[in-house]
Amino acid sequence: MTISMYEASFPVFFHTLGNLKSLLEKGIANAEARKFDPTVLANCRLAADMFPLTRQVQIACDVAKGAAARLSGTEPPKFEDNEKTLPELIARVDKTLDYLKTFKPAQIDGSEDRKIVVKIPNRELNFTGLVFLRQWAMPNFFFHVTTTYALLRHNGVDVGKGDYLGDVTG
Amino acid sequence: MTISMYEASFPVFFHTLGNLKSLLEKGIANAEARKFDPTVLANCRLAADMFPLTRQVQIACDVAKGAAARLSGTEPPKFEDNEKTLPELIARVDKTLDYLKTFKPAQIDGSEDRKIVVKIPNRELNFTGLVFLRQWAMPNFFFHVTTTYALLRHNGVDVGKGDYLGDVTG
Repeated sequence: MTISMYEASFPVFFHTLGNLKSLLEKGIANAEARKFDPTVLANCRLAADMFPLTRQVQIACDVAKGAAARLSGTEPPKFEDNEKTLPELIARVDKTLDYLKTFKPAQIDGSEDRKIVVKIPNRELNFTGLVFLRQWAMPNFFFHVTTTYALLRHNGVDVGKGDYLGDVTG
Repeated sequence: MTISMYEASFPVFFHTLGNLKSLLEKGIANAEARKFDPTVLANCRLAADMFPLTRQVQIACDVAKGAAARLSGTEPPKFEDNEKTLPELIARVDKTLDYLKTFKPAQIDGSEDRKIVVKIPNRELNFTGLVFLRQWAMPNFFFHVTTTYALLRHNGVDVGKGDYLGDVTG
């Protein structure tokens, strides 16, 4: 037996984006409890020359959105990167989830051999669908969700691994 | 068409553990260039009550090792958690890669419906192979590799996203 491309990807996005929302909600609650503006968390960085939390969440969303579009051979909607607060970032995640829900498994299944081109500065990356999912979409997606977690954790928000993993057997 | 459980998992482990080695090697080179003991990096943390880099690498290795064993229905070897330096952590990654290389795809394929039990403090988690891979092994694996990256980056090591992603189309 084998698994489908939809089964290997979309449930990961749904589950993990849901956890990302919970992490951001904990950030808001923690900032309120400690009496500082939650937007401080939206702007925090792990290094001065690294993206702030806002951008980490935007990219996590865009990786999931881009993967859905590329694997299905459709054009993704453009999301403006204008979020400045944690509630706005939660809305960005919701918007991404809503977009992902418009896909049917049949649009994704069979995409393992689809040719996928990703344009990055000065280069074009050529993938098959399977290698794109395995070596681009998934590593990038988890990178930006984990970095969001690390930023909150580093700034004293009371999140734990369980918040990142969510309801693992559900 | 569909993909196999081996194809959905082992190439991710091989590729990403190779990248993890490169990150650790960059950590050693950077510490030497900046004239401090690389072991400082092995002990660094993002929060006082979070695991240090050493433990992040050990767990990333153990997640890959445990996934291979559980999906194949075999017992994983026990690795002592006695690494104290970055070169020792690189050796731990190599030992994990050597173990993963002993598996043939046929030992992993068809494991999507296998019942898998993970024991965590005070609880047993019951998975099918597919849900275990998707909601336990992959999120945990990327979490600990990304956190290792974040620790190095936070401490001024000159690593970039490209080091984390490696040769994405290769």
